[in-house]
Amino acid sequence: MIRLSTTEPGFDAAFTRLVNARREADGDVARDVRTIVAAVRDEGDAALHAFTKKFDRHDLNETGWRIEPADCLLAYQALAPELRSALELAAERIAAYHTGQIPQDTDTTDSAGARLGARWLPVDAAGIYVPGGRAAYPSSVLMNALPAKAAGVERLVMVTPTPDGEVNPLVLAAAHLAGVDEVWRVGGAQAVAALAYGTGRIQPVDVVTGPGNAWVAEAKRQLYGVVGIDMVAGPSEIVVVADGANDAAVIAADLLSQSEHDPTSQSILFTDDAVFADAVAQAVELEIGRLATARVARESWDANGAIVVVDSLDAAMPLVNRLAPEHLELACEMADAHRLFDFVRHAGSVFLGRHTPEAIGDYVAGPNHVLPTGRRARFSSGLSVLDFMKRTSFLALDEGALAQLGPAAVALAEAEGLPAHARSVALRLR
Amino acid sequence: MIRLSTTEPGFDAAFTRLVNARREADGDVARDVRTIVAAVRDEGDAALHAFTKKFDRHDLNETGWRIEPADCLLAYQALAPELRSALELAAERIAAYHTGQIPQDTDTTDSAGARLGARWLPVDAAGIYVPGGRAAYPSSVLMNALPAKAAGVERLVMVTPTPDGEVNPLVLAAAHLAGVDEVWRVGGAQAVAALAYGTGRIQPVDVVTGPGNAWVAEAKRQLYGVVGIDMVAGPSEIVVVADGANDAAVIAADLLSQSEHDPTSQSILFTDDAVFADAVAQAVELEIGRLATARVARESWDANGAIVVVDSLDAAMPLVNRLAPEHLELACEMADAHRLFDFVRHAGSVFLGRHTPEAIGDYVAGPNHVLPTGRRARFSSGLSVLDFMKRTSFLALDEGALAQLGPAAVALAEAEGLPAHARSVALRLR
Repeated sequence: MIRLSTTEPGFDAAFTRLVNARREADGDVARDVRTIVAAVRDEGDAALHAFTKKFDRHDLNETGWRIEPADCLLAYQALAPELRSALELAAERIAAYHTGQIPQDTDTTDSAGARLGARWLPVDAAGIYVPGGRAAYPSSVLMNALPAKAAGVERLVMVTPTPDGEVNPLVLAAAHLAGVDEVWRVGGAQAVAALAYGTGRIQPVDVVTGPGNAWVAEAKRQLYGVVGIDMVAGPSEIVVVADGANDAAVIAADLLSQSEHDPTSQSILFTDDAVFADAVAQAVELEIGRLATARVARESWDANGAIVVVDSLDAAMPLVNRLAPEHLELACEMADAHRLFDFVRHAGSVFLGRHTPEAIGDYVAGPNHVLPTGRRARFSSGLSVLDFMKRTSFLALDEGALAQLGPAAVALAEAEGLPAHARSVALRLR
Repeated sequence: MIRLSTTEPGFDAAFTRLVNARREADGDVARDVRTIVAAVRDEGDAALHAFTKKFDRHDLNETGWRIEPADCLLAYQALAPELRSALELAAERIAAYHTGQIPQDTDTTDSAGARLGARWLPVDAAGIYVPGGRAAYPSSVLMNALPAKAAGVERLVMVTPTPDGEVNPLVLAAAHLAGVDEVWRVGGAQAVAALAYGTGRIQPVDVVTGPGNAWVAEAKRQLYGVVGIDMVAGPSEIVVVADGANDAAVIAADLLSQSEHDPTSQSILFTDDAVFADAVAQAVELEIGRLATARVARESWDANGAIVVVDSLDAAMPLVNRLAPEHLELACEMADAHRLFDFVRHAGSVFLGRHTPEAIGDYVAGPNHVLPTGRRARFSSGLSVLDFMKRTSFLALDEGALAQLGPAAVALAEAEGLPAHARSVALRLR
């Protein structure tokens, strides 16, 4: 953890280092992924079988390639009642929020008599990647699958690795609840390639979303254009802007809720109260000991945590915009939070006031928890129904409208040296 | 040109070949681009200077790195009056259409008392790539710059190569009209890298859009994630669905308006009238001879053109959806065009009726002419203000709302093995 104060000499340089720090490993990932992607494209199921044997240590022909809907239903029925109603509440709220995102078609006729519009349609098929192991989260299944279903996607395919053949029943239960149509027990770059190109068994999809390790992220990046993807995701981060009236233990828990995800996660506190800053630093040390995730949280907090003391919370906001954080908590009185929010230009999701912990957005609030990381909130948005839809523009002119607009098109086409363009209009103007 | 009929044996296989044909070169482009991108990232202006000397054959320190706004204004003032008013009509209509795309913010409070919403903001800075040479089109400047300006982008940067130092006055005039803030005379993969990473002279941007050759497209693909990009663009295509009541010369001009772009372009006619099919094939031969672009149009039509005779225009539509064309003309009576349009699932832009040639959309109609190519209309959309904006979701709960939603979040966090997530909520519920 580093501690900074805006009044210290050298603050600018230190803060710039914080902004620019790359927490993403690359190494030979890109090269390995190119090899895997090419093998799946060329050899299909055989490559998928071989990579699964190698990386996940089980034989798909023995464990089975698919997990049947009946098995997902069983997993759902076996949930403890409290967990089942929590998942149901989450699903209901996420579905409602994303249904509200469906864009409206447009269709207008202008003064020239030209009818212009746009029509939104869902993609035919979408694939969602669900990690195995440490990051196998049923909430991620809901956050990826429900926007696709809200968009109207007919065929929703889930891929998830089952290392050593072991399945995660929570993930299957969420797949049932979210209406996933197919579940394949494959993972890694090979699973993304299978979704993009199709194999003998797996039909290709149009869009691939979902979190994954560096290999999965790189496979999505390499296959962008063959399929649509959501975003290249990196290690996640939280920025908490808090005044001294908060409970230090609560803010410490907020910071650690990001740190416990991964050693590369980042948690940063901005406060205008140096005494409160000390209290949070101490509370983090106390809280961290209570966590079953202490090892990861400790590693992340030590390497990437930061506490920045500022003159005023307002003065923190330009710094926050430079960080363009995935998650931003404005932990202060609601009126102050709203004032600060007006200064926010770049953030994935903002949590206002003292009673809105980031974790409430991870699970049940409704907005998506798949958000731009690594400063990408400068230009990209959280996952939404738009990632599973596309827009077709349309034009309809009658003779009168063409007579009005045509001559300008002819002039421009001729100026650009495209005579067939000009002819296609001019021939209709005779 | 190949000619197919749905009633012939072997049609399915032949049509599948047409759908899957890759018209994109790759070769060593990816490797070359990686080298160029790394050099610009590490060496900035020096690399930009060297690559420009090598590829564009002029010395930036002599010709000048920037083209000044005053020079763009001069180019604009020097336009022939007819061309100037054509450009102005186009700019006005494009700006109006794209202003209509600005998404609405949302802000609602649900029955649990949770306030949920989304706020859209423009990116801080955008870069647009404008090719030099054959594809230096002022219409492309308008189609890329005006959506950015409609979105509210403060800093709009144009890069354009000036081979042998020569500038294209039409492009400069369009830059003036569209309100471009900076023009740099650099191009190729090196210009895209300069926009993404910044150099000493060029400040980085958040989003890069615009057409380019294979190197430019690959640079955008590789830098996706460092910056936002519009879409990986490939060779363009048109599908014309026409009944026998059309003028064969008109439809031939429509097909050739795509063929004349590039040898890799594709033009495909579907018709239910075999006699009309023959007439169009003959008309293409006649028309092609009139064109100053005959060489390119001939090469493209011979290699990639197709005429497909179908039983009925309705029967053509599933085939059209498999092609997911960039441009689709439905050249028939308006009522029939609307009926056919209802079957369209995948197309970048659709032109309805006999009086709506595709070229009208290239220039003056209003909707964007930057559209998904290479079957990517399955999952992506034409350029819009959304490419220059991003959405921040926000949540604000009071004590009552947290009391209602909190326990479910705690249950899910515990089930996922994320105790700090659970603590951050539970501590607030005490």
